[in-house]
Amino acid sequence: MEDIHHTCQWGTGERWGDAPTETGMTRLALSDADKAARDWFVSTTEALGCKVTVDAMGNTFAVRPGLRNDKPPTFVGSHLDTQPTGGRYDGILGVTAGVEMLRVLADNWTETEYPVGVVNWTNEEGARFPKSMVSSGVWAGDIPVETAHNLREVHPGTATMAEELKRIGYLGETPASYEAMPMAAHFELHIEQGPLLELSNKKIGVVTGVQAYKWFTINVKGRDSHTGTTDLKSRADALLTAAKLILHSHRLATANCALASTGILNLKPGSTNTVPGSVTFSLDIRSPKDSTVAKMTEHIMHDFPKIAAGEDVLDSNLGCTSGLPLDVEIVEDFSSPATNFHSDCISSVRQSAHHILGPNSHNLVMDMTSGAGHDSVYASKRCPTSMIFVPCREGVSHNPREFCKEEDCAMGARVLLQSVVRFDRM
Amino acid sequence: MEDIHHTCQWGTGERWGDAPTETGMTRLALSDADKAARDWFVSTTEALGCKVTVDAMGNTFAVRPGLRNDKPPTFVGSHLDTQPTGGRYDGILGVTAGVEMLRVLADNWTETEYPVGVVNWTNEEGARFPKSMVSSGVWAGDIPVETAHNLREVHPGTATMAEELKRIGYLGETPASYEAMPMAAHFELHIEQGPLLELSNKKIGVVTGVQAYKWFTINVKGRDSHTGTTDLKSRADALLTAAKLILHSHRLATANCALASTGILNLKPGSTNTVPGSVTFSLDIRSPKDSTVAKMTEHIMHDFPKIAAGEDVLDSNLGCTSGLPLDVEIVEDFSSPATNFHSDCISSVRQSAHHILGPNSHNLVMDMTSGAGHDSVYASKRCPTSMIFVPCREGVSHNPREFCKEEDCAMGARVLLQSVVRFDRM
Ligand SMILES: NC(=O)NCCC(=O)O
Ligand SMILES: NC(=O)NCCC(=O)O
Repeated sequence: MEDIHHTCQWGTGERWGDAPTETGMTRLALSDADKAARDWFVSTTEALGCKVTVDAMGNTFAVRPGLRNDKPPTFVGSHLDTQPTGGRYDGILGVTAGVEMLRVLADNWTETEYPVGVVNWTNEEGARFPKSMVSSGVWAGDIPVETAHNLREVHPGTATMAEELKRIGYLGETPASYEAMPMAAHFELHIEQGPLLELSNKKIGVVTGVQAYKWFTINVKGRDSHTGTTDLKSRADALLTAAKLILHSHRLATANCALASTGILNLKPGSTNTVPGSVTFSLDIRSPKDSTVAKMTEHIMHDFPKIAAGEDVLDSNLGCTSGLPLDVEIVEDFSSPATNFHSDCISSVRQSAHHILGPNSHNLVMDMTSGAGHDSVYASKRCPTSMIFVPCREGVSHNPREFCKEEDCAMGARVLLQSVVRFDRM
Repeated sequence: MEDIHHTCQWGTGERWGDAPTETGMTRLALSDADKAARDWFVSTTEALGCKVTVDAMGNTFAVRPGLRNDKPPTFVGSHLDTQPTGGRYDGILGVTAGVEMLRVLADNWTETEYPVGVVNWTNEEGARFPKSMVSSGVWAGDIPVETAHNLREVHPGTATMAEELKRIGYLGETPASYEAMPMAAHFELHIEQGPLLELSNKKIGVVTGVQAYKWFTINVKGRDSHTGTTDLKSRADALLTAAKLILHSHRLATANCALASTGILNLKPGSTNTVPGSVTFSLDIRSPKDSTVAKMTEHIMHDFPKIAAGEDVLDSNLGCTSGLPLDVEIVEDFSSPATNFHSDCISSVRQSAHHILGPNSHNLVMDMTSGAGHDSVYASKRCPTSMIFVPCREGVSHNPREFCKEEDCAMGARVLLQSVVRFDRM
């Protein structure tokens, strides 16, 4: 808990309560605040006897030698970056629990069979550079390093990842690759970010997989015109069209028991009395099933241009006068298929949870699927992986009020440590 | 035409054609480009024998003495500011035609009965400081000067009008008031900004009035949450709600044969995987009838909170799962009731148009109402006023492609000159 709150001095966000620690976080990837948190991670893990390696994506690996070092380390990983209005637990808990593991091992003069490590992955959130989990994606060989390096920040849209990595001194020389930095396994402790554990009074979620999701950028191209002199029929109103498309994405989500969300929307020119000629917005769709995400994608590709063109088949005008046809461009920015974690890691987590929670543990542990993406998704493509969830208040995350009780953080950290040790022995 | 294109060197916008003059304009009020255009206006009118006065809103009055000077001048007025993606004619034609009037009078050694003047009004567009016609509004005594001085720019939202007036050296010492700067009449030449003259093959519109409009700022307050872990029912999605409100405003416009437009929309926090907790957008509603604007306002005040609260009476969910209730705040920023111009001025314009257009003039002149607001709206509250419209290509305005033929600009300028001279004699 001390490490969590100590490191949250870098990028402290909006206050929601009276206690000194009752604030959110604003620590976008590769910002100055992120650099400060990274520097703390490097110096703290080095002081705990680790060798630290920074790769070409700024992923930072701290490795503690084992009795034998002829096999790759078992890693704990998560991220220190946050949402623009994020909390103190999303990602941060996972990294600080990894550091705590190193501390417990050191304090107890414990030697593991093989090395163990902690990794801080870069830009997991995808909040600044719009691909989530991008740097574990490069490590896994799924995303080309050039693509990642050339990613441009969403606001104000000037800096690239490579420029910002260089600026803060975290453009490492080691290739970002599972070949250069192999892992025996990857474990990640995370707050659930949803309400299920809390609602069912459980303490530990054994995460067996992660739902599928895709991110799109939608560009709507209409025509700037005067709000006072252009009748509704003569308009090509890019914002009205965007409103229809956003609503339609929610209709599709409702019909398919899936999720659809728009978190970014920018328009031009941005004047009260000019009908906007251009709107760009993000679209995030999710479902536990790849087939559902595929079906929604098909609908989007098919329906969006029709709605923009004003074809009434979809009842898309919803009682509004239809204007001129508009163009819509749909770019897929990111795709993460449904993920199943490895049975060995899942077993390590499950056994550790039951062991630690004692006789009543069958009432306190449950299997679950993650609604959010995590670096464990990409890690799982190259090594056995699983995750541990702990409850967070009302399931709220990506919000300054995100909160996880001390006892729950501690319980998660104990399960994490034991899962790693079990896997190492195995 | 030379003055138009010469002054469009300050704030040249997007190119749409190959000729050197085939670009739009980006000359927001009180920008450096606006200062340069103002400086040109001052030096040019002084060189033509005018006395120039700048008032506390930066309104700049150039007055040419008459044979007798015991009555106020007859003014020509318009504005040199533009939309962020505006054209070369909206406002600019009116001011440069006023300067041309001064030049024709000087070249021909003509003396008017009473003084004549040309005024460049500040921030007519309302594009930078979000009240259109704000400075003629202060002059007319309808808007308090403090309210205007404290208006904050829409992007990035830091500078106020008073600060920017001071910065560019146009915070004059004369009070902005019809008492300090009285007018015998106010004439304004403007492009129509709509398609009616072009469609009916007319050359001159005799403007008898201006439709009513109101501007609102709508604040939608929901809750930031994670796009991957928050089910649709547990969301308070401020952007989804804004999309419903924008659509509803268009349904109201359709039902009332009125206009509704949203030109500005900002959301927070602005991350692909965070459901936005806060959205602010502008709403511009218009109708020729005050009663229709009043009725639409009532609907907005009544329906918007209901839609945000998720009450289904209005079929506002449109096939989407409804989430948690949201709050909505509606602020009226600006209101301009329907305006009727003065019969003396209307007659001056009508007679001048028929006189200049000759025997076939009955086919070339028509009465019309303006869809856009103009400084003539506020001028008309304190002196006889009317306007002259000339056709613009396809009725397009508030767009870089806005275009008015040289012959149409010239025809408008001739009608303007003669209208002023007729009124002066009268
Ligand atoms: N855990 C988390 O919030 N990750 C961000 C990636 C996502 O959008 O799911
Ligand atoms: N003429 C013109 O475009 N004025 C701007 C004020 C309005 O929004 O109508």
